Amino acid sequence: MNAQQPPPVSRVGSAPVKRTSGPRKSQEIFDATLDLLQDKGYEGLTVEGVAERAGVNKTTLYRWWPSKGALLGAALVNSTRLGFPLPDTGSLQGDLETVLNSVVALLTTQSTANIAIASLGAVAQSPELALHARNFFADRLAREQPILDRAIARGELTPDTDPALLMHLMDMLAGAAWLRVAFRQLPLDAEFVTRTVRTALHGALEQPRPLGHP
Amino acid sequence: MNAQQPPPVSRVGSAPVKRTSGPRKSQEIFDATLDLLQDKGYEGLTVEGVAERAGVNKTTLYRWWPSKGALLGAALVNSTRLGFPLPDTGSLQGDLETVLNSVVALLTTQSTANIAIASLGAVAQSPELALHARNFFADRLAREQPILDRAIARGELTPDTDPALLMHLMDMLAGAAWLRVAFRQLPLDAEFVTRTVRTALHGALEQPRPLGHP
Repeated sequence: MNAQQPPPVSRVGSAPVKRTSGPRKSQEIFDATLDLLQDKGYEGLTVEGVAERAGVNKTTLYRWWPSKGALLGAALVNSTRLGFPLPDTGSLQGDLETVLNSVVALLTTQSTANIAIASLGAVAQSPELALHARNFFADRLAREQPILDRAIARGELTPDTDPALLMHLMDMLAGAAWLRVAFRQLPLDAEFVTRTVRTALHGALEQPRPLGHP
Repeated sequence: MNAQQPPPVSRVGSAPVKRTSGPRKSQEIFDATLDLLQDKGYEGLTVEGVAERAGVNKTTLYRWWPSKGALLGAALVNSTRLGFPLPDTGSLQGDLETVLNSVVALLTTQSTANIAIASLGAVAQSPELALHARNFFADRLAREQPILDRAIARGELTPDTDPALLMHLMDMLAGAAWLRVAFRQLPLDAEFVTRTVRTALHGALEQPRPLGHP
């Protein structure tokens, strides 16, 4: 880690607090992995190519990651490039809008969008990478947990809130963003973010009442 | 079309009512296209391979579809294999649950799941196919429109309902299903369907009120 990085605890998806070991130059290795994926696709990604680009010995890489899938999985989870700040706006709606805005930025900024779309293709082709994608999404969700904890502390949510609420919300928010950008190829604008968060949050928290009878 | 098929008008994503032209043996051609995609991936899909498997001349295929991307796009939209009944359960919640159950079945039944996941990878690799995926999702949405029209006719929705409501709902419903199955690799069970539809529908239709103040 270098001195310019913010403290890891404040970032979601950046160099993790829990990881206590790893080779030197980890971020250079992860950057090289994502660069190669973006340039050549999963087919063209090789451990040797990453070693060359990052300026490290390939045996170093193999010592930490037994395959290119494992290396890409680690890069997806640990690269600071795919990380984003864990928001603390003072409201659950605000925090979720910030998270969804970060997902939108990831999917619409050229450099990271290429990585996301290339990963999408790779997940479809490689069962091993699919496993690492699963870990990536589980890791993201775990790091977003403070958003719900703080909402409970503020009294926005009750202490007995379903622990699965965060996944339920993120499935709909991130799922809608992915579907729109990957399949519909429609813009992800501010109105999309506000409306989707409002719908998911109110729908999840309101008591169901018969429709058409306000 | 053979005699066993239900009337096209009752199916979403099946042989379309609007398509007035196309070669004979269209369904065999679409089936062969999807079979080849499933067996060999988008890389291994060729117009020649489809012609051979479907027992038609490849010049026939090229007359209708100028490329393998166009052929796959037509197969995705028009194959009866990816179609599902347009529900009419008598309630908006029931109709949306049925649609989401159909999406879930598509994504979790081995044969169609393979096609969906292979298409996912192909979309990431081919801008042309991405265009056809977009058409597929637009076509689905257009055919689902009667669900909202009937809800308005029943008085569940007001006549001035935002025309974008259906896309807003389907983004969240189908997006959540895709994200869970492709990235999280978690089961899509009945509770997922009921809860996701309830949240999206109530959230979209309820007037927002301050959270924590019921």
